[in-house]
Amino acid sequence: MVSFNYSTTVYYKDIDQMGIVYYSRYFEFFEAARTKLLASIDLTVTDIELLGVYLPVVHAECNYIEGAKFEDNLIVKTVIRELPKLRLVIDYAVVKTNNTKELVTGQSTHVFINQKTSKPVRPPKQVIEKLKPFFNLNKERQ
Amino acid sequence: MVSFNYSTTVYYKDIDQMGIVYYSRYFEFFEAARTKLLASIDLTVTDIELLGVYLPVVHAECNYIEGAKFEDNLIVKTVIRELPKLRLVIDYAVVKTNNTKELVTGQSTHVFINQKTSKPVRPPKQVIEKLKPFFNLNKERQ
Amino acid sequence: MVSFNYSTTVYYKDIDQMGIVYYSRYFEFFEAARTKLLASIDLTVTDIELLGVYLPVVHAECNYIEGAKFEDNLIVKTVIRELPKLRLVIDYAVVKTNNTKELVTGQSTHVFINQKTSKPVRPPKQVIEKLKPFFNLNKERQ
Amino acid sequence: MVSFNYSTTVYYKDIDQMGIVYYSRYFEFFEAARTKLLASIDLTVTDIELLGVYLPVVHAECNYIEGAKFEDNLIVKTVIRELPKLRLVIDYAVVKTNNTKELVTGQSTHVFINQKTSKPVRPPKQVIEKLKPFFNLNKERQ
Repeated sequence: MVSFNYSTTVYYKDIDQMGIVYYSRYFEFFEAARTKLLASIDLTVTDIELLGVYLPVVHAECNYIEGAKFEDNLIVKTVIRELPKLRLVIDYAVVKTNNTKELVTGQSTHVFINQKTSKPVRPPKQVIEKLKPFFNLNKERQ
Repeated sequence: MVSFNYSTTVYYKDIDQMGIVYYSRYFEFFEAARTKLLASIDLTVTDIELLGVYLPVVHAECNYIEGAKFEDNLIVKTVIRELPKLRLVIDYAVVKTNNTKELVTGQSTHVFINQKTSKPVRPPKQVIEKLKPFFNLNKERQ
Repeated sequence: MVSFNYSTTVYYKDIDQMGIVYYSRYFEFFEAARTKLLASIDLTVTDIELLGVYLPVVHAECNYIEGAKFEDNLIVKTVIRELPKLRLVIDYAVVKTNNTKELVTGQSTHVFINQKTSKPVRPPKQVIEKLKPFFNLNKERQ
Repeated sequence: MVSFNYSTTVYYKDIDQMGIVYYSRYFEFFEAARTKLLASIDLTVTDIELLGVYLPVVHAECNYIEGAKFEDNLIVKTVIRELPKLRLVIDYAVVKTNNTKELVTGQSTHVFINQKTSKPVRPPKQVIEKLKPFFNLNKERQ
C-alpha cells in the first residue's frame, strides 16, 4: 500500500452558488493528490511520460457526504492498495484538517497506454520497481 | 423518461497535456446538460431554488472510453429514467455530432435538501408536476 | 473589422460564493468566443495549428462592471478591429441577451509563434487571406 | 508594503493543448495567492466577509512572458504596495522555484462593497488596522 496526505485550501474558485465546493473540483484535487503521491515515491508523472506511456483515467467517481466551505483546509488521503497489473486504482478520502469525518470519498482508475499507438500496455518496469517495495508481494502473488 | 441533447464544443480550456478533454471537465458538461434538460421542460434550477430547496450531487461517476479532442462538437445525451422519489438520477452519454460511438458515459445522483436546514426533503410538488407527464405512472406505481 | 456574437449560459460551475460569475471564467468565455469568431470566417484554430503555428496569449485583461448571475444568457461581443501585423488584438464585451448594458469588457493580445522554435513569426499568409476581406485595406496601408 | 510568496505546482488540470498553463488559470493562482497573503497578516477573507463586505475584482490583467509547464513548482510573488483608500490593488509575479525569471506578471484591483446594497464602501476599519503596520504612514499622507 502506498499512501499520501495531500493538503489544499478551498478558494473562491472552488465554491459554487450553494457556498460549497463545486462537485467537479474534487477531481482536480484528486489529480493533484495522486501526482504528489507518486512524486513522494520518486515517480513523477513527467518521468512516467518520458517512458512513452500516458496514464489516462478510464473511470472516476465521487461520493459527496458534506460540502467543504471557503477557506477550509482539506486533506486528501490518497491510497494505492494494489500493485497495478493492468489498471491502477487510487482511492481518495477528503477530510478537514484535524477532523476525521469524511466529506468526500472517491476513486480513479487508470490504464497505461502507449503514447504513439494509444493502445493499453503493461505498467513500465520502472514504475513497478518504484511501487513494489510498498506492497506485500506474497499477498500479491496469491 | 425525459431526455435532452446538449451540444457543446471543446475549447483549449478543456484540453490537457494529452491533447484530450481533461477528465473533470465532463462533469461541467453534465451540469450544463442537466440544467438545459430541466429548462427544456420549463423547470429552471433557479425556479427550483426559489422553492427553498437545493439539488446537490451526492454521487457522480464517469467512464472514459475515448478522449474528445479540441474543436470537437459534442452532444451530451442526457436522460432522467425515473420520476424521483427521493433521489434524482441522471444519465449521460457523450458522442460527437453525427456519430453514435460513446466517448464518455456518466451518471449523477442528486438529493433535494431544504436550504435552511440542509436536511433531505421530498421533491417539491411543483417539480414533480413538471416531470410527471414524461413518465408512465402505471409503471412507476408497480 | 470582424465581429461575432458568442452566446453562452451561466451555470453553477461559473458561479462563486458571491453568487456571480467567478472572475477568471470570463477568460474561458473569451476563448470560446474568439474560437467561434475565427470559425465563422472559415478559419479554425485547428487549421491554424496545422500550419505549424500557435497563437498564445501575451496579454489579457478584463473590466468587471456588473456580475452575471446563474442561468443568465450572455452574449460575448467579439471584435478584431485591425488586420494583425504581428499581434492579433481581440476585444470583448459581455451583455445579457436583450440588453445593451455591458457587464464585462476585456481584451486579449496574441502572437503567432512557430511551434518548433517557439519564436514569434508573422501571421501565416492563409490566415491573412481569410481576414483581409473584412478590413479596409486603404486604411490599413496608411 | 505587504508581500507574500505563494507556492503552487502545475498539474494536468492547468495545462492546455500547447503544453503550457492555460491563460485563465493564473487568475486562480492569483486568488489563492492573495487569500494566503491576507491570511498571513491574520486577515482571512472569511473574516472580511463577516464584516458585511465583499471584495469583488473590478479589473484584472496578466502578461504572459513564458509558459509554465506540467509539474513546475511555481512561486506567485504577491504584493500590496499601497494602503487602500477605496481600491485595493495587488501585484503578482510568477517565477519558478529557484529562478528569478518572471514567467507571468499580473494585477488585480478590488473594491469593497456592502453585501446588502452592493454599493462601494470604504475599507472596513478592521481591515485597515491589520494592513496599516506594513505601510509608511508619512508617505501615505503626502
